[in-house]
Amino acid sequence: MKQFAVIGLGRFGSSVARTLTQMGYDVLAIDSDENKVEELADVVTHAVTASALEETVLKSLGVRNFDVVVVAIGQDIQSNILVTLMLKEMGVKKVVAKASTELQGKVLQKIGADIVVFPERDMGERVARWLVSRNIIDVINLSPDYSLVELAAPAEFHGTSLQDSGLRKKYGITVLAIRRGKEFIISPEARQIIEEGDVLIVLGSNEKLKLFETEG
Amino acid sequence: MKQFAVIGLGRFGSSVARTLTQMGYDVLAIDSDENKVEELADVVTHAVTASALEETVLKSLGVRNFDVVVVAIGQDIQSNILVTLMLKEMGVKKVVAKASTELQGKVLQKIGADIVVFPERDMGERVARWLVSRNIIDVINLSPDYSLVELAAPAEFHGTSLQDSGLRKKYGITVLAIRRGKEFIISPEARQIIEEGDVLIVLGSNEKLKLFETEG
Amino acid sequence: MKQFAVIGLGRFGSSVARTLTQMGYDVLAIDSDENKVEELADVVTHAVTASALEETVLKSLGVRNFDVVVVAIGQDIQSNILVTLMLKEMGVKKVVAKASTELQGKVLQKIGADIVVFPERDMGERVARWLVSRNIIDVINLSPDYSLVELAAPAEFHGTSLQDSGLRKKYGITVLAIRRGKEFIISPEARQIIEEGDVLIVLGSNEKLKLFETEG
Amino acid sequence: MKQFAVIGLGRFGSSVARTLTQMGYDVLAIDSDENKVEELADVVTHAVTASALEETVLKSLGVRNFDVVVVAIGQDIQSNILVTLMLKEMGVKKVVAKASTELQGKVLQKIGADIVVFPERDMGERVARWLVSRNIIDVINLSPDYSLVELAAPAEFHGTSLQDSGLRKKYGITVLAIRRGKEFIISPEARQIIEEGDVLIVLGSNEKLKLFETEG
Amino acid sequence: MKQFAVIGLGRFGSSVARTLTQMGYDVLAIDSDENKVEELADVVTHAVTASALEETVLKSLGVRNFDVVVVAIGQDIQSNILVTLMLKEMGVKKVVAKASTELQGKVLQKIGADIVVFPERDMGERVARWLVSRNIIDVINLSPDYSLVELAAPAEFHGTSLQDSGLRKKYGITVLAIRRGKEFIISPEARQIIEEGDVLIVLGSNEKLKLFETEG
Amino acid sequence: MKQFAVIGLGRFGSSVARTLTQMGYDVLAIDSDENKVEELADVVTHAVTASALEETVLKSLGVRNFDVVVVAIGQDIQSNILVTLMLKEMGVKKVVAKASTELQGKVLQKIGADIVVFPERDMGERVARWLVSRNIIDVINLSPDYSLVELAAPAEFHGTSLQDSGLRKKYGITVLAIRRGKEFIISPEARQIIEEGDVLIVLGSNEKLKLFETEG
Amino acid sequence: MKQFAVIGLGRFGSSVARTLTQMGYDVLAIDSDENKVEELADVVTHAVTASALEETVLKSLGVRNFDVVVVAIGQDIQSNILVTLMLKEMGVKKVVAKASTELQGKVLQKIGADIVVFPERDMGERVARWLVSRNIIDVINLSPDYSLVELAAPAEFHGTSLQDSGLRKKYGITVLAIRRGKEFIISPEARQIIEEGDVLIVLGSNEKLKLFETEG
Amino acid sequence: MKQFAVIGLGRFGSSVARTLTQMGYDVLAIDSDENKVEELADVVTHAVTASALEETVLKSLGVRNFDVVVVAIGQDIQSNILVTLMLKEMGVKKVVAKASTELQGKVLQKIGADIVVFPERDMGERVARWLVSRNIIDVINLSPDYSLVELAAPAEFHGTSLQDSGLRKKYGITVLAIRRGKEFIISPEARQIIEEGDVLIVLGSNEKLKLFETEG
Repeated sequence: MKQFAVIGLGRFGSSVARTLTQMGYDVLAIDSDENKVEELADVVTHAVTASALEETVLKSLGVRNFDVVVVAIGQDIQSNILVTLMLKEMGVKKVVAKASTELQGKVLQKIGADIVVFPERDMGERVARWLVSRNIIDVINLSPDYSLVELAAPAEFHGTSLQDSGLRKKYGITVLAIRRGKEFIISPEARQIIEEGDVLIVLGSNEKLKLFETEG
Repeated sequence: MKQFAVIGLGRFGSSVARTLTQMGYDVLAIDSDENKVEELADVVTHAVTASALEETVLKSLGVRNFDVVVVAIGQDIQSNILVTLMLKEMGVKKVVAKASTELQGKVLQKIGADIVVFPERDMGERVARWLVSRNIIDVINLSPDYSLVELAAPAEFHGTSLQDSGLRKKYGITVLAIRRGKEFIISPEARQIIEEGDVLIVLGSNEKLKLFETEG
Repeated sequence: MKQFAVIGLGRFGSSVARTLTQMGYDVLAIDSDENKVEELADVVTHAVTASALEETVLKSLGVRNFDVVVVAIGQDIQSNILVTLMLKEMGVKKVVAKASTELQGKVLQKIGADIVVFPERDMGERVARWLVSRNIIDVINLSPDYSLVELAAPAEFHGTSLQDSGLRKKYGITVLAIRRGKEFIISPEARQIIEEGDVLIVLGSNEKLKLFETEG
Repeated sequence: MKQFAVIGLGRFGSSVARTLTQMGYDVLAIDSDENKVEELADVVTHAVTASALEETVLKSLGVRNFDVVVVAIGQDIQSNILVTLMLKEMGVKKVVAKASTELQGKVLQKIGADIVVFPERDMGERVARWLVSRNIIDVINLSPDYSLVELAAPAEFHGTSLQDSGLRKKYGITVLAIRRGKEFIISPEARQIIEEGDVLIVLGSNEKLKLFETEG
Repeated sequence: MKQFAVIGLGRFGSSVARTLTQMGYDVLAIDSDENKVEELADVVTHAVTASALEETVLKSLGVRNFDVVVVAIGQDIQSNILVTLMLKEMGVKKVVAKASTELQGKVLQKIGADIVVFPERDMGERVARWLVSRNIIDVINLSPDYSLVELAAPAEFHGTSLQDSGLRKKYGITVLAIRRGKEFIISPEARQIIEEGDVLIVLGSNEKLKLFETEG
Repeated sequence: MKQFAVIGLGRFGSSVARTLTQMGYDVLAIDSDENKVEELADVVTHAVTASALEETVLKSLGVRNFDVVVVAIGQDIQSNILVTLMLKEMGVKKVVAKASTELQGKVLQKIGADIVVFPERDMGERVARWLVSRNIIDVINLSPDYSLVELAAPAEFHGTSLQDSGLRKKYGITVLAIRRGKEFIISPEARQIIEEGDVLIVLGSNEKLKLFETEG
Repeated sequence: MKQFAVIGLGRFGSSVARTLTQMGYDVLAIDSDENKVEELADVVTHAVTASALEETVLKSLGVRNFDVVVVAIGQDIQSNILVTLMLKEMGVKKVVAKASTELQGKVLQKIGADIVVFPERDMGERVARWLVSRNIIDVINLSPDYSLVELAAPAEFHGTSLQDSGLRKKYGITVLAIRRGKEFIISPEARQIIEEGDVLIVLGSNEKLKLFETEG
Repeated sequence: MKQFAVIGLGRFGSSVARTLTQMGYDVLAIDSDENKVEELADVVTHAVTASALEETVLKSLGVRNFDVVVVAIGQDIQSNILVTLMLKEMGVKKVVAKASTELQGKVLQKIGADIVVFPERDMGERVARWLVSRNIIDVINLSPDYSLVELAAPAEFHGTSLQDSGLRKKYGITVLAIRRGKEFIISPEARQIIEEGDVLIVLGSNEKLKLFETEG
């Protein structure tokens, strides 16, 4: 089973470490702040108070043998960069580094980070998208143009069939499935009646989806 | 069209403001740090350097007339709480507040925040889930037990039909759609052949999806 | 007998703790500043250096079993709010919280504080009222309009009977009692002579009392 | 009419200034912190941003002509002491100074402060006394042994006459007056029935009052 | 033999402590800064690292039994004042306190300091007087008008008798003694010849001495 | 008439500047702290807010033309040294520099300071000497062995002649003059009677003077 | 003629800028500290107070058109890295970046710095080498093994011919030239006599040169 | 063999210490920062955490017996000066002190530093010179007018003889030696052909060398 190390235990890093542990993986959590380490001590496999900037420290912890190392150092951009470089120089196969700005993201890529993530920016985008919709619960961007959307069935559709809802005709939106309580209706037929409380799993172009949201 | 105000322009807040603006909405962005305001000045409809803790300031900006106000103040928990309360006292219809911890989240709910978001925690969870999978590109949690997943078709399935892939039989996973380049195959038939580069949009129980990911 | 805990040992909190102890009650005093705890160590039943923000700390001290917990944290409004919420979540029956501003007071009420006190504001009001009077020693506001007042008998009344003093006729002020040295004359008669050094306990409308003070 | 100056506009000082103004007096409010002055600018007669440590400043403001000057500087004990001395040297008739500790109080008295007040300590005492009682609303300490008390009539007395309540016999407590709604029953007779909602104004020894509170 | 305590071991305090020790007296030296105490540890009788603001500390050191206590705390005016008061309250016979400003000096006197010294101010005056003179080596101000002066004999007097020097006639200056190498000529006669290298001990009015200095 | 510049307006520097001005000299006072400069603005001839570390500043002020420049910078030893060097490099004839420690004093001498003064150390010595004496008012050290002393006539000498006092015989102390009120008795005869309130101006060896002080 | 920009005007950066200017080149000097910019304002072609971290600033200054940009930011490693990346992204042909540590040096190379210099480290090496020699004035390291050395002729060689000095035979050192005052003797003959004050320009292996230095 | 002490272990000081150690010398390294000392602990002969400002420390380390002491304290100019003076007062034969500015350099010389070095300034000059040249690898300044230069043979000279290159005729530059791979051609003849990759060791006037560089 894959082994993970997380360096930097702020909100993002500790959330990564917690979730991985809950999914059953071994996680080594490292931070220089004793308090943050203590908070995770009972949660993860191994929590260590140490400065990740010291190469000897990383070596003695055997960091190079981990499958994935997540560099979640946020405030101190300098340490974020230097630790990422050290990990790649030590031969770590997959280094995931957190960036705050585009520029920092580019530095991380150039020095060898395998994956660069922008948690605050990405979460900001998700929240923004979700705020503007009346019914959308969650979204996956499949391509720049198409999205997969989890949608609370609008009140005006209650008691209407999919066909009569105009979703396909008017908006070109395909309903892939309907969640009704704990059940799923896969590939629903056109005459399927939409009930109150239904959640629609739909696929459509972003343009049309927006039209539906604002006009619908 | 809905009007939004965003208070606090750190990484998360400015990302919310940028995205809303790109989607065509009017956004008022407020921060007490002049530099952060300047960075957004050319992006959003209106960017103002002001202390949101002063009620007269919020009133003179007409904040009460906005449809949604996002309180994205991160570091200063005290201001985060007091501003949220002031906005509700002023009669703002929908206040979205960012929390860093569960406890802060509870305070925000008790004083009237309509929605409380935990961006770093949620993003940490997403990244963690994504790290452990071999093929999963993105996920929507439909319920505590079921997820909608965007999945890169694994190499061993290339040239195989959906039926032969065992996705349904072995893992109980339903393929709702296939993205092939810019095209979508909606509700694919069982005999549909999976090609290299295909992206599968599937629905399944979390338990089975994890099994597929780790064993598959 | 009731048991009290006081969290935050600044001037106000330590005064609450001292007074309760002097009245014979058991008091647990908590602060994160070792020096402040030491000062009270010989005074109260139990004085502990601890961070009240850590739930495990509060639990290990058995705070939930105390009848009343006073949150007297002053400077750090954030801690003041979060600790108050934690105490209510833990099931403490009566939480008294100190507020510095109206806004903070509202937050404390919304998150469940049973009583909110504003010591500096209230004391400022008392001192102000006392400063403007020539003879008033102390006051209780019975209603927005009526007050109970402890009054040093003005020099011009010495040797005069209550009747002749005009207190009732001119000012509508009722003398409930007279303190003469260590004795009390309850419900004095109209012909009772006022002596030098007498303290009058009177009841009257605020309007009349003010008139008496400034004209009398 | 008396004129007041208040130096130092923290919670206590600003409360003194506000209350005096509400009572109709002229108040000059002084602080070196512009924000604090601004907050009071619309409330008091005259609010000035100035350093009270500069003698020329105090002179140019004509501080010596005020009837009472309240030195409400709290944090900076040194300034508190030096300003108090300067005011007395300038010939101000009545200087009221706020002290945080007994030692500071002694210094203030020795250098000539006419009145020294300890707001946090006194308020702490008041709150403590009030917390331990079931029914007491407010208290005036008439002497070290006797107090005048505003008392919510306990439930077990409702429908009982004063005589039968045992207040006088059992506890030696005299009821001077009863407040019933907006009315006052002065020197109530022994057969007066206590009703629900009555507030009793009583006089008694502290010892007996405490007995009543804890046993009653 | 007298016993001295010195509280505050900056440049002035440590110089007082050193000189007293060199003159053969017992000196207790106290400072809260360990480094300053260490520097004097081998010099004075007893050097202690302690906070003089804690009454128990002063008592345990038996400070009340010292003949003279010098409060040489310079930077922290508040501590300087409070410690001085505590010493007098404890019954120390003679407290010498260092002041930086006239105002601070007045406070110290009012709270009971037996002697108040202004080292920097006094030394500034001495250095100034010495700078303006051509020949004056040192001065004692006997009264506001008269001074005792140690004077290097000016070159134009070498080989001249006291009489011919015009010191008495022209300037009204009396030569009390002449130091010639290691010898002293007491009450020299008028015909005494002044030699190169002589140092004159003279007495005169300040006015005349200044005249001599600038014209002579 | 001599012209003086004083750089650094702390307690010592401002005292030098004030005294020189009072004695009628032109003084240029320089400090980088505006407040300190303002305090002296009405006192000295010319007060300037400027950084003495900038050579162009010193040149534009014409500092090189002053007869004496006093470098009274205290806290910042580095500036004290660099400014002293700059002044000598610029050709100032007489630079007087204030030192806090022996080591700093040596540096100042080596880089060319004409005179180095140690105000706190010297004042400490003076105060120490004065504290141990019963009657000595002021002292001039004429040589390492002999001092000129202003002495309040001890009570046991009142009504005694100089001869009978034993000052000369027992202690080898010569009385050069007696100050009686505003008058001076120069070279008093042996039969001169000492009166209460007399101040003796005496000359003696330090050894004998100390003997007199402690035994006398 | 080449045009240079220097970003960061500490000791190293300002020295680079000064020297380039003295050699006749155009230099643009940039720093965010106004004082440092002012110091160079009269020296270089163009000195600007600006934050190099803002891309718009660098663009408006036309930095991309300079032939060489020297990033001499020392303290703030993060800025050093980000500015270097921005310059390369903007298309600057040659970026020279200053590094403090090996790790920082590697980051700079990976993100595209054309040349990385380590001034303090290199200067430390030079000074060290120079300290251990008796006569060596300066050195160029031609290869890991050979150096070109400027050598003060040792006293024992004065009056000796090159041949007799044993430099070639004993140490294998070749004398390429002799500087005698302002003249140079190129490729001196073996019989050339070495005079006092001669400076030899020699080439030899490091091993032999060290042998000569310590034994010679 | 010579023994060295290095005080101050920043980039420059630690580089001096490392290089001396690599050359086989005994080095005592001193700094007050434990981290810096630890970094060198395994490199130099002896590394000590100590404050060099304390004379007793320097004495107990036997610093006076070292042949050369390098004062490499950079940030704290005051300590740099005081330590240098102390070392000379203690009798250290050769003290090398690092200066940041000309003024500081003068102070160091006046208080007795045997050698003053300006590493950042000198390195800045070297880098600047090297940047402007096309081919120059390193330079020794033999006199204000003449330099010894290590020069990569320009492309246009490849295959040309020294004579035909015009180096001597056109630029007055003498080629003392040619490095070809690991070999050296000493005093090459005029007909020697220059090959690609050759490094020329030349001597010439600065004026001509610059002409060659910019025109050549």
